[in-house]
Amino acid sequence: MYGVDPPLTMKRVRSQNSQKNPRNKVVVRVPATSANMGPGFDALGLGLDIWNEISVERAAKFKITTEGEGAGAIPETVDDNGESNHMVIKALKRAFEYAGEPMPRVKVHCRNRIPVCSGFGSSSAAIVGGLVAGLALAGLELRAGYDPGHPQWLPEELLQLATEMEGHPDNVAPSIYGGIQLSVQLSPVDMGGGPRLNAQLALSRRVPIPEGLRLVAYVPSEATRFSFASADKTNEMRALLPPDVPREQAVFNIQRTALLIDCLHRGDLSLLRFATEDVLHQPARATIYPHLKPMCQAAINAGAHGAFLSGAGPTILAICSGATGGDIFTQTREERQENGVANAMRRAVDSLSTKHDQWKGGKFYICSPCYQGCHVVSADPPMSDAMATFGTLDGDL
Amino acid sequence: MYGVDPPLTMKRVRSQNSQKNPRNKVVVRVPATSANMGPGFDALGLGLDIWNEISVERAAKFKITTEGEGAGAIPETVDDNGESNHMVIKALKRAFEYAGEPMPRVKVHCRNRIPVCSGFGSSSAAIVGGLVAGLALAGLELRAGYDPGHPQWLPEELLQLATEMEGHPDNVAPSIYGGIQLSVQLSPVDMGGGPRLNAQLALSRRVPIPEGLRLVAYVPSEATRFSFASADKTNEMRALLPPDVPREQAVFNIQRTALLIDCLHRGDLSLLRFATEDVLHQPARATIYPHLKPMCQAAINAGAHGAFLSGAGPTILAICSGATGGDIFTQTREERQENGVANAMRRAVDSLSTKHDQWKGGKFYICSPCYQGCHVVSADPPMSDAMATFGTLDGDL
Repeated sequence: MYGVDPPLTMKRVRSQNSQKNPRNKVVVRVPATSANMGPGFDALGLGLDIWNEISVERAAKFKITTEGEGAGAIPETVDDNGESNHMVIKALKRAFEYAGEPMPRVKVHCRNRIPVCSGFGSSSAAIVGGLVAGLALAGLELRAGYDPGHPQWLPEELLQLATEMEGHPDNVAPSIYGGIQLSVQLSPVDMGGGPRLNAQLALSRRVPIPEGLRLVAYVPSEATRFSFASADKTNEMRALLPPDVPREQAVFNIQRTALLIDCLHRGDLSLLRFATEDVLHQPARATIYPHLKPMCQAAINAGAHGAFLSGAGPTILAICSGATGGDIFTQTREERQENGVANAMRRAVDSLSTKHDQWKGGKFYICSPCYQGCHVVSADPPMSDAMATFGTLDGDL
Repeated sequence: MYGVDPPLTMKRVRSQNSQKNPRNKVVVRVPATSANMGPGFDALGLGLDIWNEISVERAAKFKITTEGEGAGAIPETVDDNGESNHMVIKALKRAFEYAGEPMPRVKVHCRNRIPVCSGFGSSSAAIVGGLVAGLALAGLELRAGYDPGHPQWLPEELLQLATEMEGHPDNVAPSIYGGIQLSVQLSPVDMGGGPRLNAQLALSRRVPIPEGLRLVAYVPSEATRFSFASADKTNEMRALLPPDVPREQAVFNIQRTALLIDCLHRGDLSLLRFATEDVLHQPARATIYPHLKPMCQAAINAGAHGAFLSGAGPTILAICSGATGGDIFTQTREERQENGVANAMRRAVDSLSTKHDQWKGGKFYICSPCYQGCHVVSADPPMSDAMATFGTLDGDL
């Protein structure tokens, strides 16, 4: 199956059902994500039930407005040609370019609930939300990926577009699809070294989420998140990591990633404490995150099944088991471990010496994984039936 | 759960049911194994339905005899005190030491079907077979591992003993338990850096084997296997591997190990071709194994789902899907892909230039995974009921 035909290059595909059906206004929701999950560096990501809503409407001139997280901090400038550093605008432009349509003038409104610069994938959300909104606005239906085991495989287009913009699939995949995603960047090695594969194609698969998982996340204050790194935090955090790693460290993470996928498939939380350990990125990042080790250990000691840095941080995420809803009085003690874990994490960060005071004023998010990814909430005019092939739609459209 | 009590050190445990019931003679069977499975370097191993049988009997003086693979090549010397380089004798001594019994004089007979120096885990088989035979001979019942998620966790004793002797759990675990095993070596990192963990404790879990898996293995000739490396092949092969690896290579293998575990849980063979790719050990080893790349690629081209170096080589293993038994005439073509894959692999090795002629005279093994590991075939006097807690016994004892 090496050297498949047609060649595995990305191309724009319209399904036979798709119609040129451009829209005037589209609203999308896109979830927060937590990449890495401990050992799965650049490989695993988890969608969270915390959402940004992006509204995009054709307009006489470009305009960006923001409410909620990052309002006043994220530059909203965009010139008359649509040139902007705003990731939503960049993604919209990419979507129209991909659809082969001229980029229209739009007004964009972002209702942000995902804390920015926190390790919760707010850039991925902007990229994915912008792409989906732009594609929906342009009326382009994407081809879903075919099974790579088959000779007619085409890559999942939205994942390729988003990965190309973000650089890594592990944040964008859960943002697109929700759930826990394992992402693989294919390379010429995977294709037998043949000359036909130009792009770094990404594929991603959903790994089962054990039932009743609850997440306790500690997000340092906005002032702290903005103070220690520039807006290009992800790249700066990556620069902390040495380019080479000892072979034993690679083995350490390979073993634990294997165990983590196994635990998730079994719905077995008992070994997560080992399966979420990491030596490839957290120890290096702990040098600038004094709260990382004490808060993870406090969470485990308080009964969390695992705890790790979310993405490139500084958010700390602890995995708890609790009911995802229903009457609180019907829940057993085990099902309510989130508060105990959060309190223990709070005490741990508060115990840091006074020189680390900036890390203490953060906020806890107690939330669930999200089971779906980015989706169109409303569109004007309404979506055609053919758009259902996005596979990420909910509600009446 | 950090800092559990009692401390996580290995200790000899007798269950309340166990009796001192030493035996005169024990026969054990122990399977071949294939470590790494591509990306799972030092993490994954697969038991194969190819068995060595080791018979150990109390005797007036020490004696080792061998028939089958390695006969005449494996030194059979053992002095009157039981000093020997023979791994079965070493493992027997370790078992009696662990049981707190003096090592008796024994005659050992090995019926070997696992090719030696081939990457099929023949050393692990000798270690595990010797340990199990010795423990059965001494009449010691081992404690099975408790769930590490619980505070009373004790490590699985046989796995610790064998890992301590072999150095890595990924070969010994499938030798002990059969199936596909994912192994994790716990370290102080996993225990919150506490001082209580002295040993590198190993744990191992069975990963589901997709139904109908068939394995095509190419084992170079004994002369070739012995010619290019000394008896300490495993360590020599390891010395080929640089101590540090580029971070991208670690990520490459982490992503594919995650995908491999996911595929195995789903019984999905379609992505194995990507999930069995590796950059951490095979490229370095390909420098001395000219047959490695061409044979893997030929296997994939002929329809194998994945192909990789078995352990430290030189055996090449291809994963096929075929019926594991039954009437050949009831099997579909897909179920008989083994012969086509073997033929393609043969053509690939035969196409190597004449300077690589030594690699051409090997043998194909077409076999299945094994679903159980090392077990006692017979014992005199018969085993007590309590010995059933080994969990690896079959047949009437």
